[in-house]
Amino acid sequence: MKKMFLMTMLVGCFSVQADEGMWQPYQLPAMADELKAKGLEIDAENISTLTEYPMNAVISLGGCTASFVSPKGLVVTNHHCAYGSIQYNSTPENNLLKNGFLAKTYQDELAATPGSRVYVTESAVEVTDKIKHGLMELKGKAFYQGIEQREKALISACEIDKSYRCQVYSFHGGLEYYLVKQLAIRDVRLVYNPAASVGKYGGDIDNWMWPRHTGDFSFYRAYVSKDGKPADFSVDNVPYEPKSFLKVSAKGVSKDDFVMVAGYPGRTNRYRTANEIQNTFEWSYPEAKMLRERFIDIIKQTAPSGTDERIKYESLIAGLANYAKNYTSMIEFYGKSGMLADKEQGEQALSTWIKVDAKNNATFSDSLTQLDALVVESQENQARKMILGYMDYTAMVPTARQLYRLANEKKLADIDREPGYQLRDIPEFKSQLERIDRRYAASVDKALLFDLLQRYSQLPENEHISALDTFFGIKAGFDAKSVQQTLDNMYAKTQLGDEATRLSWMNKSIDEFKASNDPFIQFAVAMYESDMTQESKEKQLTGELMKVRPQYMAALIAYYRAQGKPIYADANSSLRVSVGYVKGYSPEDGLYAEPFTRLEGIVQKNTGIAPFDAPEKELALIKKKQYGDFYVEAVNSVPVNFLSTLDTTGGNSGSPTLNGRAELVGLLFDGVYESIIGDWNYNPQNNRSIQVDSRYMLWVMKYVDNADNLLAEMDIVH
Amino acid sequence: MKKMFLMTMLVGCFSVQADEGMWQPYQLPAMADELKAKGLEIDAENISTLTEYPMNAVISLGGCTASFVSPKGLVVTNHHCAYGSIQYNSTPENNLLKNGFLAKTYQDELAATPGSRVYVTESAVEVTDKIKHGLMELKGKAFYQGIEQREKALISACEIDKSYRCQVYSFHGGLEYYLVKQLAIRDVRLVYNPAASVGKYGGDIDNWMWPRHTGDFSFYRAYVSKDGKPADFSVDNVPYEPKSFLKVSAKGVSKDDFVMVAGYPGRTNRYRTANEIQNTFEWSYPEAKMLRERFIDIIKQTAPSGTDERIKYESLIAGLANYAKNYTSMIEFYGKSGMLADKEQGEQALSTWIKVDAKNNATFSDSLTQLDALVVESQENQARKMILGYMDYTAMVPTARQLYRLANEKKLADIDREPGYQLRDIPEFKSQLERIDRRYAASVDKALLFDLLQRYSQLPENEHISALDTFFGIKAGFDAKSVQQTLDNMYAKTQLGDEATRLSWMNKSIDEFKASNDPFIQFAVAMYESDMTQESKEKQLTGELMKVRPQYMAALIAYYRAQGKPIYADANSSLRVSVGYVKGYSPEDGLYAEPFTRLEGIVQKNTGIAPFDAPEKELALIKKKQYGDFYVEAVNSVPVNFLSTLDTTGGNSGSPTLNGRAELVGLLFDGVYESIIGDWNYNPQNNRSIQVDSRYMLWVMKYVDNADNLLAEMDIVH
Repeated sequence: MKKMFLMTMLVGCFSVQADEGMWQPYQLPAMADELKAKGLEIDAENISTLTEYPMNAVISLGGCTASFVSPKGLVVTNHHCAYGSIQYNSTPENNLLKNGFLAKTYQDELAATPGSRVYVTESAVEVTDKIKHGLMELKGKAFYQGIEQREKALISACEIDKSYRCQVYSFHGGLEYYLVKQLAIRDVRLVYNPAASVGKYGGDIDNWMWPRHTGDFSFYRAYVSKDGKPADFSVDNVPYEPKSFLKVSAKGVSKDDFVMVAGYPGRTNRYRTANEIQNTFEWSYPEAKMLRERFIDIIKQTAPSGTDERIKYESLIAGLANYAKNYTSMIEFYGKSGMLADKEQGEQALSTWIKVDAKNNATFSDSLTQLDALVVESQENQARKMILGYMDYTAMVPTARQLYRLANEKKLADIDREPGYQLRDIPEFKSQLERIDRRYAASVDKALLFDLLQRYSQLPENEHISALDTFFGIKAGFDAKSVQQTLDNMYAKTQLGDEATRLSWMNKSIDEFKASNDPFIQFAVAMYESDMTQESKEKQLTGELMKVRPQYMAALIAYYRAQGKPIYADANSSLRVSVGYVKGYSPEDGLYAEPFTRLEGIVQKNTGIAPFDAPEKELALIKKKQYGDFYVEAVNSVPVNFLSTLDTTGGNSGSPTLNGRAELVGLLFDGVYESIIGDWNYNPQNNRSIQVDSRYMLWVMKYVDNADNLLAEMDIVH
Repeated sequence: MKKMFLMTMLVGCFSVQADEGMWQPYQLPAMADELKAKGLEIDAENISTLTEYPMNAVISLGGCTASFVSPKGLVVTNHHCAYGSIQYNSTPENNLLKNGFLAKTYQDELAATPGSRVYVTESAVEVTDKIKHGLMELKGKAFYQGIEQREKALISACEIDKSYRCQVYSFHGGLEYYLVKQLAIRDVRLVYNPAASVGKYGGDIDNWMWPRHTGDFSFYRAYVSKDGKPADFSVDNVPYEPKSFLKVSAKGVSKDDFVMVAGYPGRTNRYRTANEIQNTFEWSYPEAKMLRERFIDIIKQTAPSGTDERIKYESLIAGLANYAKNYTSMIEFYGKSGMLADKEQGEQALSTWIKVDAKNNATFSDSLTQLDALVVESQENQARKMILGYMDYTAMVPTARQLYRLANEKKLADIDREPGYQLRDIPEFKSQLERIDRRYAASVDKALLFDLLQRYSQLPENEHISALDTFFGIKAGFDAKSVQQTLDNMYAKTQLGDEATRLSWMNKSIDEFKASNDPFIQFAVAMYESDMTQESKEKQLTGELMKVRPQYMAALIAYYRAQGKPIYADANSSLRVSVGYVKGYSPEDGLYAEPFTRLEGIVQKNTGIAPFDAPEKELALIKKKQYGDFYVEAVNSVPVNFLSTLDTTGGNSGSPTLNGRAELVGLLFDGVYESIIGDWNYNPQNNRSIQVDSRYMLWVMKYVDNADNLLAEMDIVH
């Protein structure tokens, strides 16, 4: 009876309130009644403080989310979030991607890829006033720099204890600011990963797709010095003991169950203007999709399958393809949706509302008009900006430019330097330089750069950059043969392909750069003045946007409030909580995507050829129906992946999906194809997140990989 | 309560008895209790006689099934079954495929494509004894010819009344024979077809696929002379008044409802041996798929999109692609299934059963061994046979050969001629010659023939045919340039591309052929002796198979009977009844194909580009939710297509799908991808037929095409 009643409640609530929203934890207590009605069994207060259980068990890896799942610093995240570390520790003799890896003791655990971090949030304080106070009279670049100075000062003060990494997060386009202080653990070790044929089963073919059968989980451990402080890797370090850790559910969830997810979603664009939407979907995404697909073609032609060069570029190809597919979906669903018209109507309604109470809304009026004018301005030169922006996908050009920029920034006091070039950034700067070798082949780099230069040359005269034209001799048009010759010479001559040389440039003076005969260093020097002028213009515009967009958001918030609707901020990589249900959907008329997949689906998909090449041992277990402790009657198998209505985006990867008691029931790792456009517009009909089911994770650990030591270490609730 | 009870019954029965089986109507009364339990509301006796209502309303178009739906000879079938006639009546000025067509009066109705027939079954009599009596001592070719003589004699006697078309059907590989007498109505007219953007919506992309949204229906009318006899087209002819016709249901069916289908399924292979299965799936289908895909490539290269030549070959491309896809599916699901192992086990079990009661089963012993030996023999030269067989997809080679064969056959008494060359066959023979122009371009014909000759030349020496080698000068190897030259000359010189010339050859003597300087006639003459030798060998082997396969089938039937299981014969284009349910399925783990699609799915799929270019009027009606009389609450729309478990195959196209009261609730037009292999092995989990829902048909007729005259003419039950 109780269950029946709950079900009715759920259905009732669902129809009233969709599952849209990436809430800041502090917002949750105000929604306590609704959360309880939805299925939250613990007190909403309990999930409202970043620094207390269970939220403080949710950690960031920088780009991915993870969580502590043992008192000894054991961390669970996605296989694809640990991919770099698995790859880094692989050798031709012992390919951990292929074979999987399990450390049976602490001593067997392997250092993660250089630069790996576990960030544990220790405080989050609103600092809007500290950031903005006294700056509101400034304009454009001055305002931009004023805000940046304040941010840097706050961060600098916060990071006096070198154990911490601090960051200022802007919400609602600059309406509010929060200073977040995180313990930055830098001895991170790989503990366990299933074989890629489990952890990446379905690979890029299944990426964004349902049905899904990916065992996308892996385990790290955070290590600290014996006195409990973050430290560089050392055999003397000991496992970090987190303040709290999540329990892992062996019982899992069922269809229509309440779930919530805590994580660090990267970016959403839910409050962009109609103008921005139209330009993005009708220009930027189609253009970026084309460039990415072209890049993939060039890489495949230049580095044929099976070559050493190709291996270095598999990761870039995957990244390019991932977002080419993402944009394809965006464009497709934008075409099908009434998104633009809805947004235009919304803006009309906002304007009307502002006018109706013009007196009270005086501060809001014109904010949209002003914002739109700036948006239009920011779209000028966008074709050129995109082409030059894609140069950052090559290796030599951005490397040389960043090195020369560093030499210039180092002249300044640390607090005055451009973010990314401050002392706090140097270790990551160095790590990036170190990582290049594994991802760089001159032949491919050259071919990509050639393509971009050719595209650049076709821009209208007034879009051309004099320094660039001069350097490559493309003032009077594009002479392919000559540019090819120039590039051949540059790549033959440059020493930046050598790691030691690259690193040595971190310590060189501006004069040494100017005197260099390395062609890419020469290029960086030649472009510098022009680059700085461009950047200054950008900062001027950004500064103006940073003043106007908060006004627009304030208007929007007031408008929502007047309608009794809560508003959540766009994702900005800060910790958020989404709530929803385990639920299927209809990808097209006549088809229903069921909320769970089963072990048998792995066998069905298996061809023996990657990415559908599950381990023989796993296939044999499934064929023998060895479901063990994780059999679920409702699906007559062990559930592998499940769908939820949770509102998430990139950055949520690895996030713990929790049941109403805050027990880990899954790891979020993807969204379905139809929900990619959700970054702009959450659609309750088909916005679905994909989780690996905790029961599948435990089943693989117990029966396929015999990770009994980890199962014993975790607190598994039945 | 009654409904609840029925539901329980259905579920219970379904688990006991799958929906496999294409039953001969006479078998149904023995299954009366089971049929009633399944949901048949009328007496099983009522559907057991071919010549009584409702079975006599189910007619054959030769290749497709159709049914009478009015007292005035109105016939409903699939759009794709009437496609040829729609195309035939189309002109650049009035493209009926594009615009659709509706005759508002009898006078407006258009003659169907030449050779169109409506076959109404008038009797079906078992003639096994008449066929076989006294022949059992004969062997090989003698047995083959003996059987053929008897068949021809029966047919000849039956067709004394020229209004009839008679045919002898062999069941269980020759265990039983039936003589079927059908009224052959030869004045067939096109009455109504929706636009191809409705009738072929989804086109080849959606072919074999679900979800589906195809309005695959069209209407013919059968005409006879004023005295009620079949007659050639004449304005004096009058609509045929059938003995009965089907009522059309406006209420339709729901999920899990009982349905049955009556139709003329072409061929199945449910009782083939393991050896035959392995050879077919591991050699024949892969080889045929490759040849078909190669043919498509050649046609597309030779006749680029937009050319007149290409238009002529669209139909062949579609046919080649259809079966290339069919074979791809077969190969895929064969690989996934345990079909071969199951069959081997079954054969083992049969052998064991035979041995256990060796005395009673004496006549069965060795039948499998003998059959297998013949099967292996028939696989000899299969590579050559396939290549030469594919020459029949070209135009000039088979045309010339058939014409010369006709000249030779005409020397014989009619009863002694090869089937296909008897007097009764001449009209269709002529129609085929007339149809060539619309489907022939010398450039494409030549390119296909060249490819086949090249393939032939690569066969081992002992597979070569001396006459063919000599004619094309490929005795000492394939000289591409020289063969190309020969073909260029042949196509430049031949007059067979001209319809009148082709037809004139029907009346020429062997001497005239021998004296001809038409290169294809010369080819036919040169090959004749060799062709006849090959044919004689084939007949020898076929005769042996015709003796052994019935023995094997008799053994199998006895074995089934011993287990209390009824057995149905493989499809052979004779009238069959299948029974089943409206039911979805899971195409893969985590996905469920719902049993109905909806109007809204048409809008979802619509891109404006064929084959997803529904008429504007239809799209507007859907967007306005103008469901009218055909709204169904369960799907919150008008259902478009539905899935059933009905056991069907090619030839069932156009078949009326009936509810338990024998009212027409849909037209069968396809099967899902997973059920293609059903021709060999019916799998209750995913064998699904696709029907256009009667409610969608009526909705289109009423609201999109305003076919009120036809709606008034039909007996529509609400």
